[in-house]
Amino acid sequence: MAEEYIVHYFDVRGRAEPIRFILSYAKANWKDQRIPYNSFPAVIPPEIKAVATYGQVPVLEVNGKFLSQTTTICRYLARKFNLVGENDWEATKCDEVVDGAQDFSLLFSGAWTENDPEKKKVIVEKAAADGREKFISRFNAMLEANGGFFVGSKITWADIIVVNAIDFMEKLWGLNIAEGYPFVKKLMENVFNADGIKEWIEKRPDTKM
Amino acid sequence: MAEEYIVHYFDVRGRAEPIRFILSYAKANWKDQRIPYNSFPAVIPPEIKAVATYGQVPVLEVNGKFLSQTTTICRYLARKFNLVGENDWEATKCDEVVDGAQDFSLLFSGAWTENDPEKKKVIVEKAAADGREKFISRFNAMLEANGGFFVGSKITWADIIVVNAIDFMEKLWGLNIAEGYPFVKKLMENVFNADGIKEWIEKRPDTKM
Repeated sequence: MAEEYIVHYFDVRGRAEPIRFILSYAKANWKDQRIPYNSFPAVIPPEIKAVATYGQVPVLEVNGKFLSQTTTICRYLARKFNLVGENDWEATKCDEVVDGAQDFSLLFSGAWTENDPEKKKVIVEKAAADGREKFISRFNAMLEANGGFFVGSKITWADIIVVNAIDFMEKLWGLNIAEGYPFVKKLMENVFNADGIKEWIEKRPDTKM
Repeated sequence: MAEEYIVHYFDVRGRAEPIRFILSYAKANWKDQRIPYNSFPAVIPPEIKAVATYGQVPVLEVNGKFLSQTTTICRYLARKFNLVGENDWEATKCDEVVDGAQDFSLLFSGAWTENDPEKKKVIVEKAAADGREKFISRFNAMLEANGGFFVGSKITWADIIVVNAIDFMEKLWGLNIAEGYPFVKKLMENVFNADGIKEWIEKRPDTKM
Protein backbone atom coordinates (compact mmCIF):
# COMPACT_ATOMS: atom_id res chain seq x y z
CA MET A 1 0.00 0.00 0.00
CA ALA A 2 1.14 3.51 -0.76
CA GLU A 3 2.47 5.60 2.13
CA GLU A 4 0.07 8.08 3.62
CA TYR A 5 1.37 11.60 4.06
CA ILE A 6 -0.27 14.11 6.39
CA VAL A 7 0.49 17.82 6.09
CA HIS A 8 -0.03 19.73 9.34
CA TYR A 9 -0.24 23.49 8.83
CA PHE A 10 -2.42 26.53 9.38
CA ASP A 11 -5.51 27.10 7.27
CA VAL A 12 -3.57 29.15 4.70
CA ARG A 13 -1.33 28.47 1.73
CA GLY A 14 1.87 30.07 3.08
CA ARG A 15 4.78 27.76 3.73
CA ALA A 16 2.82 24.55 3.19
CA GLU A 17 1.62 25.22 -0.34
CA PRO A 18 4.73 23.94 -2.16
CA ILE A 19 4.42 20.72 -0.12
CA ARG A 20 0.77 20.39 -1.15
CA PHE A 21 1.73 21.07 -4.80
CA ILE A 22 4.37 18.33 -4.78
CA LEU A 23 1.99 15.81 -3.20
CA SER A 24 -0.74 16.77 -5.68
CA TYR A 25 1.56 16.60 -8.68
CA ALA A 26 2.84 13.19 -7.54
CA LYS A 27 -0.76 12.01 -6.97
CA ALA A 28 0.36 10.81 -3.56
CA ASN A 29 -1.96 9.47 -0.91
CA TRP A 30 -2.09 12.53 1.37
CA LYS A 31 -4.21 14.43 3.84
CA ASP A 32 -4.36 18.17 4.37
CA GLN A 33 -4.68 18.70 8.11
CA ARG A 34 -5.43 22.37 8.77
CA ILE A 35 -5.03 24.19 12.07
CA PRO A 36 -7.82 26.77 12.33
CA TYR A 37 -7.06 30.44 12.93
CA ASN A 38 -9.14 30.90 16.08
CA SER A 39 -6.74 33.48 17.39
CA PHE A 40 -3.83 35.52 16.05
CA PRO A 41 -1.16 34.30 16.07
CA ALA A 42 -2.77 30.92 15.54
CA VAL A 43 -2.05 28.35 18.22
CA ILE A 44 -0.31 25.15 17.18
CA PRO A 45 -2.01 22.24 18.99
CA PRO A 46 0.25 20.72 21.67
CA GLU A 47 0.34 17.28 20.00
CA ILE A 48 1.77 18.89 16.84
CA LYS A 49 4.09 21.23 18.73
CA ALA A 50 5.51 18.16 20.48
CA VAL A 51 6.62 16.56 17.20
CA ALA A 52 7.73 19.77 15.46
CA THR A 53 11.52 19.87 15.55
CA TYR A 54 11.64 23.64 16.18
CA GLY A 55 8.08 24.10 17.44
CA GLN A 56 7.03 25.41 14.01
CA VAL A 57 4.71 24.16 11.28
CA PRO A 58 4.48 22.83 8.59
CA VAL A 59 5.11 19.32 9.84
CA LEU A 60 4.89 16.31 7.55
CA GLU A 61 3.75 13.05 9.08
CA VAL A 62 4.63 9.84 7.34
CA ASN A 63 4.25 6.36 8.87
CA GLY A 64 4.34 7.74 12.40
CA LYS A 65 7.52 9.70 11.70
CA PHE A 66 7.70 13.49 11.48
CA LEU A 67 9.60 16.03 9.44
CA SER A 68 9.84 19.79 9.90
CA GLN A 69 10.94 22.74 7.76
CA THR A 70 9.33 23.39 4.38
CA THR A 71 12.46 23.04 2.27
CA THR A 72 13.50 19.81 3.98
CA ILE A 73 10.02 18.34 3.53
CA CYS A 74 9.82 19.37 -0.12
CA ARG A 75 13.26 17.95 -0.95
CA TYR A 76 12.40 14.68 0.80
CA LEU A 77 9.17 14.31 -1.17
CA ALA A 78 10.82 15.43 -4.40
CA ARG A 79 13.39 12.64 -4.04
CA LYS A 80 10.67 10.08 -3.33
CA PHE A 81 8.69 11.16 -6.39
CA ASN A 82 11.63 11.68 -8.78
CA LEU A 83 11.30 15.44 -9.06
CA VAL A 84 15.00 16.19 -8.53
CA GLY A 85 16.40 15.76 -12.03
CA GLU A 86 18.24 12.75 -13.39
CA ASN A 87 21.52 12.73 -11.46
CA ASP A 88 23.48 14.30 -8.58
CA TRP A 89 24.46 17.37 -10.54
CA GLU A 90 20.85 18.05 -11.58
CA ALA A 91 19.67 17.51 -7.99
CA THR A 92 22.27 20.07 -6.94
CA LYS A 93 21.10 22.50 -9.60
CA CYS A 94 17.56 22.13 -8.19
CA ASP A 95 18.98 23.02 -4.76
CA GLU A 96 20.68 26.09 -6.21
CA VAL A 97 17.37 27.33 -7.64
CA VAL A 98 15.56 26.64 -4.36
CA ASP A 99 18.21 28.57 -2.41
CA GLY A 100 17.78 31.45 -4.84
CA ALA A 101 14.02 31.43 -4.31
CA GLN A 102 14.63 31.57 -0.58
CA ASP A 103 16.95 34.57 -0.91
CA PHE A 104 14.31 36.22 -3.06
CA SER A 105 11.61 35.70 -0.40
CA LEU A 106 13.95 36.96 2.33
CA LEU A 107 14.18 40.35 0.61
CA PHE A 108 10.63 40.94 1.85
CA SER A 109 11.22 39.84 5.44
CA GLY A 110 11.48 43.36 6.88
CA ALA A 111 7.96 44.10 5.62
CA TRP A 112 6.39 41.48 7.91
CA THR A 113 7.47 43.23 11.09
CA GLU A 114 7.00 46.85 9.95
CA ASN A 115 3.75 48.32 11.27
CA ASP A 116 3.91 51.76 9.66
CA PRO A 117 2.08 51.36 6.30
CA GLU A 118 4.22 53.99 4.54
CA LYS A 119 7.47 52.37 5.65
CA LYS A 120 6.08 48.94 4.80
CA LYS A 121 5.35 50.17 1.30
CA VAL A 122 8.90 51.43 0.86
CA ILE A 123 10.35 48.10 2.02
CA VAL A 124 8.07 46.10 -0.29
CA GLU A 125 8.87 48.27 -3.30
CA LYS A 126 12.60 48.04 -2.71
CA ALA A 127 12.33 44.25 -2.21
CA ALA A 128 10.35 43.89 -5.42
CA ALA A 129 12.89 45.94 -7.39
CA ASP A 130 15.86 44.07 -5.89
CA GLY A 131 14.06 40.76 -6.34
CA ARG A 132 13.47 41.45 -10.02
CA GLU A 133 17.03 42.53 -10.63
CA LYS A 134 18.82 39.85 -8.62
CA PHE A 135 16.55 36.84 -8.98
CA ILE A 136 13.55 37.06 -11.32
CA SER A 137 15.57 38.34 -14.27
CA ARG A 138 18.12 35.58 -13.69
CA PHE A 139 15.41 32.94 -13.30
CA ASN A 140 13.98 34.16 -16.60
CA ALA A 141 17.36 33.81 -18.35
CA MET A 142 17.91 30.34 -16.86
CA LEU A 143 14.47 29.18 -18.02
CA GLU A 144 15.03 30.58 -21.49
CA ALA A 145 18.45 28.92 -21.79
CA ASN A 146 17.13 25.56 -20.56
CA GLY A 147 14.01 25.45 -22.72
CA GLY A 148 11.29 26.27 -20.20
CA PHE A 149 12.10 24.44 -16.97
CA PHE A 150 14.92 25.05 -14.51
CA VAL A 151 16.44 21.58 -14.69
CA GLY A 152 15.96 19.00 -17.44
CA SER A 153 12.88 19.02 -19.62
CA LYS A 154 10.08 18.49 -17.12
CA ILE A 155 8.79 19.91 -13.83
CA THR A 156 11.10 19.48 -10.84
CA TRP A 157 10.55 20.68 -7.30
CA ALA A 158 12.70 23.72 -8.16
CA ASP A 159 9.96 24.91 -10.54
CA ILE A 160 7.29 24.33 -7.90
CA ILE A 161 9.24 26.24 -5.23
CA VAL A 162 9.96 29.27 -7.41
CA VAL A 163 6.40 29.52 -8.71
CA ASN A 164 4.99 29.40 -5.18
CA ALA A 165 7.51 31.93 -3.86
CA ILE A 166 6.61 34.45 -6.57
CA ASP A 167 2.87 33.79 -6.36
CA PHE A 168 2.88 34.16 -2.57
CA MET A 169 4.75 37.49 -2.63
CA GLU A 170 2.60 38.81 -5.48
CA LYS A 171 -0.67 38.05 -3.70
CA LEU A 172 0.56 39.07 -0.25
CA TRP A 173 1.90 42.47 -1.29
CA GLY A 174 -0.27 43.17 -4.33
CA LEU A 175 2.59 43.08 -6.80
CA ASN A 176 3.18 41.95 -10.34
CA ILE A 177 6.73 40.79 -9.89
CA ALA A 178 6.85 38.44 -12.87
CA GLU A 179 5.53 41.06 -15.31
CA GLY A 180 7.99 41.48 -18.16
CA TYR A 181 9.64 38.09 -17.62
CA PRO A 182 7.90 35.87 -20.17
CA PHE A 183 9.69 32.63 -19.30
CA VAL A 184 8.86 33.05 -15.61
CA LYS A 185 5.24 33.82 -16.52
CA LYS A 186 5.11 30.77 -18.75
CA LEU A 187 6.58 28.56 -16.02
CA MET A 188 3.92 29.76 -13.59
CA GLU A 189 1.24 28.89 -16.12
CA ASN A 190 2.78 25.47 -16.76
CA VAL A 191 3.00 24.63 -13.07
CA PHE A 192 -0.50 25.91 -12.25
CA ASN A 193 -1.92 23.86 -15.12
CA ALA A 194 0.07 20.71 -14.50
CA ASP A 195 -1.87 17.50 -14.07
CA GLY A 196 -2.68 17.06 -10.37
CA ILE A 197 -1.81 20.66 -9.44
CA LYS A 198 -4.63 22.10 -11.56
CA GLU A 199 -7.13 19.89 -9.71
CA TRP A 200 -5.63 20.85 -6.36
CA ILE A 201 -5.94 24.58 -7.09
CA GLU A 202 -9.58 24.09 -8.08
CA LYS A 203 -10.49 22.31 -4.88
CA ARG A 204 -8.20 23.92 -2.29
CA PRO A 205 -9.75 26.08 0.43
CA ASP A 206 -10.10 29.71 -0.65
CA THR A 207 -7.86 31.46 1.88
CA LYS A 208 -6.43 34.96 1.89
CA MET A 209 -2.77 33.93 1.92
CA MET B 1 43.35 12.01 -10.10
CA ALA B 2 41.23 13.59 -7.40
CA GLU B 3 38.95 16.45 -8.42
CA GLU B 4 40.24 19.92 -7.66
CA TYR B 5 37.82 22.24 -5.90
CA ILE B 6 38.28 26.02 -5.88
CA VAL B 7 36.39 28.16 -3.36
CA HIS B 8 35.89 31.75 -4.55
CA TYR B 9 34.94 34.11 -1.73
CA PHE B 10 35.95 37.28 0.07
CA ASP B 11 38.93 37.33 2.41
CA VAL B 12 36.76 36.49 5.44
CA ARG B 13 35.24 33.40 6.99
CA GLY B 14 31.56 34.36 6.58
CA ARG B 15 29.49 32.24 4.27
CA ALA B 16 32.42 30.28 2.86
CA GLU B 17 33.76 28.86 6.11
CA PRO B 18 31.45 25.81 6.30
CA ILE B 19 32.54 24.96 2.73
CA ARG B 20 36.19 25.24 3.74
CA PHE B 21 35.51 23.08 6.83
CA ILE B 22 33.92 20.32 4.74
CA LEU B 23 36.77 20.33 2.21
CA SER B 24 39.34 20.30 5.05
CA TYR B 25 37.58 17.52 6.93
CA ALA B 26 37.34 15.45 3.73
CA LYS B 27 41.02 16.16 2.97
CA ALA B 28 39.95 17.12 -0.50
CA ASN B 29 42.23 18.65 -3.09
CA TRP B 30 41.11 22.28 -2.86
CA LYS B 31 42.21 25.88 -3.26
CA ASP B 32 41.06 28.87 -1.25
CA GLN B 33 40.74 31.74 -3.71
CA ARG B 34 40.18 34.96 -1.78
CA ILE B 35 38.83 38.22 -3.15
CA PRO B 36 40.60 41.08 -1.34
CA TYR B 37 38.64 43.77 0.45
CA ASN B 38 40.04 46.79 -1.41
CA SER B 39 36.80 48.65 -1.02
CA PHE B 40 33.60 48.29 0.94
CA PRO B 41 31.48 46.60 -0.17
CA ALA B 42 34.15 44.41 -1.76
CA VAL B 43 33.96 44.10 -5.52
CA ILE B 44 33.46 40.64 -7.00
CA PRO B 45 35.78 40.32 -10.02
CA PRO B 46 33.83 40.25 -13.31
CA GLU B 47 35.03 36.74 -14.24
CA ILE B 48 33.55 35.40 -10.98
CA LYS B 49 30.40 37.50 -11.21
CA ALA B 50 29.85 36.01 -14.67
CA VAL B 51 29.72 32.44 -13.34
CA ALA B 52 27.85 33.21 -10.09
CA THR B 53 24.25 32.12 -10.57
CA TYR B 54 22.84 35.11 -8.65
CA GLY B 55 25.90 37.38 -8.87
CA GLN B 56 26.87 36.45 -5.32
CA VAL B 57 29.80 34.58 -3.77
CA PRO B 58 30.75 31.99 -2.54
CA VAL B 59 31.15 30.13 -5.81
CA LEU B 60 32.58 26.63 -5.98
CA GLU B 61 34.53 25.72 -9.08
CA VAL B 62 34.93 22.06 -9.93
CA ASN B 63 36.22 20.75 -13.28
CA GLY B 64 35.27 23.96 -15.07
CA LYS B 65 31.74 23.84 -13.65
CA PHE B 66 30.38 26.29 -11.11
CA LEU B 67 28.02 26.14 -8.15
CA SER B 68 26.52 28.98 -6.13
CA GLN B 69 24.80 29.34 -2.74
CA THR B 70 26.52 28.13 0.41
CA THR B 71 23.96 25.53 1.42
CA THR B 72 23.80 24.04 -2.06
CA ILE B 73 27.59 23.84 -2.25
CA CYS B 74 27.89 22.28 1.21
CA ARG B 75 25.22 19.66 0.52
CA TYR B 76 26.87 18.77 -2.80
CA LEU B 77 30.25 18.29 -1.16
CA ALA B 78 28.75 16.47 1.82
CA ARG B 79 27.18 13.94 -0.56
CA LYS B 80 30.48 13.48 -2.41
CA PHE B 81 32.35 12.90 0.84
CA ASN B 82 29.71 10.79 2.63
CA LEU B 83 28.85 13.35 5.30
CA VAL B 84 25.05 13.01 4.92
CA GLY B 85 24.33 10.01 7.14
CA GLU B 86 23.71 6.46 6.01
CA ASN B 87 20.40 6.63 4.16
CA ASP B 88 17.72 8.94 2.72
CA TRP B 89 16.04 9.53 6.07
CA GLU B 90 19.33 10.48 7.72
CA ALA B 91 20.19 12.77 4.80
CA THR B 92 16.80 14.41 5.32
CA LYS B 93 17.44 14.76 9.05
CA CYS B 94 20.70 16.55 8.16
CA ASP B 95 18.68 18.92 5.95
CA GLU B 96 16.28 19.59 8.82
CA VAL B 97 19.15 20.60 11.09
CA VAL B 98 20.67 22.79 8.38
CA ASP B 99 17.33 24.54 7.81
CA GLY B 100 17.10 25.14 11.57
CA ALA B 101 20.59 26.67 11.60
CA GLN B 102 19.52 28.96 8.78
CA ASP B 103 16.40 30.10 10.68
CA PHE B 104 18.62 30.72 13.70
CA SER B 105 20.99 32.92 11.67
CA LEU B 106 18.07 34.81 10.12
CA LEU B 107 16.97 35.99 13.57
CA PHE B 108 19.97 38.34 13.44
CA SER B 109 19.33 39.67 9.94
CA GLY B 110 17.79 42.97 11.09
CA ALA B 111 21.01 43.81 12.93
CA TRP B 112 23.04 43.95 9.71
CA THR B 113 21.09 46.87 8.29
CA GLU B 114 20.50 48.81 11.53
CA ASN B 115 22.92 51.72 11.87
CA ASP B 116 21.87 53.04 15.27
CA PRO B 117 24.13 51.22 17.79
CA GLU B 118 21.50 51.21 20.55
CA LYS B 119 18.81 49.77 18.27
CA LYS B 120 21.32 47.28 16.88
CA LYS B 121 22.05 46.12 20.42
CA VAL B 122 18.35 45.57 21.13
CA ILE B 123 17.92 43.52 17.93
CA VAL B 124 20.98 41.40 18.68
CA GLU B 125 19.90 40.72 22.26
CA LYS B 126 16.41 39.73 21.22
CA ALA B 127 17.80 37.51 18.44
CA ALA B 128 20.18 35.83 20.87
CA ALA B 129 17.38 35.18 23.38
CA ASP B 130 14.99 33.88 20.68
CA GLY B 131 17.80 31.86 19.12
CA ARG B 132 18.58 30.17 22.42
CA GLU B 133 14.95 29.40 23.15
CA LYS B 134 13.90 28.24 19.69
CA PHE B 135 17.03 26.64 18.30
CA ILE B 136 20.07 26.27 20.58
CA SER B 137 18.11 24.61 23.40
CA ARG B 138 16.54 22.25 20.88
CA PHE B 139 19.88 21.52 19.22
CA ASN B 140 21.23 20.72 22.67
CA ALA B 141 18.39 18.27 23.37
CA MET B 142 18.80 16.63 19.95
CA LEU B 143 22.53 16.18 20.50
CA GLU B 144 21.99 14.75 23.98
CA ALA B 145 19.34 12.30 22.73
CA ASN B 146 21.51 11.17 19.80
CA GLY B 147 24.74 10.71 21.74
CA GLY B 148 26.72 13.78 20.69
CA PHE B 149 26.16 14.31 16.97
CA PHE B 150 23.02 15.39 15.14
CA VAL B 151 22.73 12.36 12.88
CA GLY B 152 24.33 8.97 13.37
CA SER B 153 27.49 8.57 15.41
CA LYS B 154 30.00 10.71 13.52
CA ILE B 155 30.35 14.20 12.07
CA THR B 156 27.96 15.08 9.25
CA TRP B 157 27.65 18.36 7.39
CA ALA B 158 24.77 19.24 9.74
CA ASP B 159 27.24 19.43 12.64
CA ILE B 160 29.61 21.58 10.59
CA ILE B 161 26.84 23.99 9.55
CA VAL B 162 25.46 24.47 13.07
CA VAL B 163 28.89 24.96 14.64
CA ASN B 164 29.83 27.58 12.06
CA ALA B 165 26.48 29.39 12.36
CA ILE B 166 26.85 29.71 16.14
CA ASP B 167 30.55 30.58 16.03
CA PHE B 168 29.96 33.26 13.38
CA MET B 169 27.15 34.94 15.32
CA GLU B 170 29.09 34.73 18.60
CA LYS B 171 32.19 36.38 17.15
CA LEU B 172 30.29 38.92 15.05
CA TRP B 173 28.07 40.22 17.86
CA GLY B 174 30.26 39.44 20.87
CA LEU B 175 27.88 36.86 22.32
CA ASN B 176 28.14 33.62 24.23
CA ILE B 177 25.10 31.97 22.73
CA ALA B 178 26.12 28.38 23.44
CA GLU B 179 26.81 29.07 27.13
CA GLY B 180 24.71 26.75 29.29
CA TYR B 181 24.18 24.21 26.48
CA PRO B 182 26.83 21.58 27.21
CA PHE B 183 26.08 19.29 24.26
CA VAL B 184 26.28 22.20 21.82
CA LYS B 185 29.54 23.34 23.44
CA LYS B 186 30.92 19.82 23.20
CA LEU B 187 29.93 19.54 19.54
CA MET B 188 31.73 22.80 18.80
CA GLU B 189 34.84 21.44 20.47
CA ASN B 190 34.58 18.14 18.59
CA VAL B 191 34.19 19.84 15.22
CA PHE B 192 36.96 22.38 15.83
CA ASN B 193 39.30 19.58 16.89
CA ALA B 194 38.38 17.14 14.15
CA ASP B 195 41.17 15.80 12.00
CA GLY B 196 41.62 18.13 9.03
CA ILE B 197 39.54 20.95 10.52
CA LYS B 198 41.98 21.52 13.38
CA GLU B 199 44.82 21.94 10.87
CA TRP B 200 42.70 24.28 8.76
CA ILE B 201 41.88 26.50 11.74
CA GLU B 202 45.57 26.70 12.61
CA LYS B 203 46.62 27.80 9.16
CA ARG B 204 43.63 29.85 7.94
CA PRO B 205 44.06 33.61 7.46
CA ASP B 206 43.37 35.56 10.64
CA THR B 207 40.39 37.66 9.58
CA LYS B 208 37.93 39.66 11.66
CA MET B 209 34.82 37.80 10.52
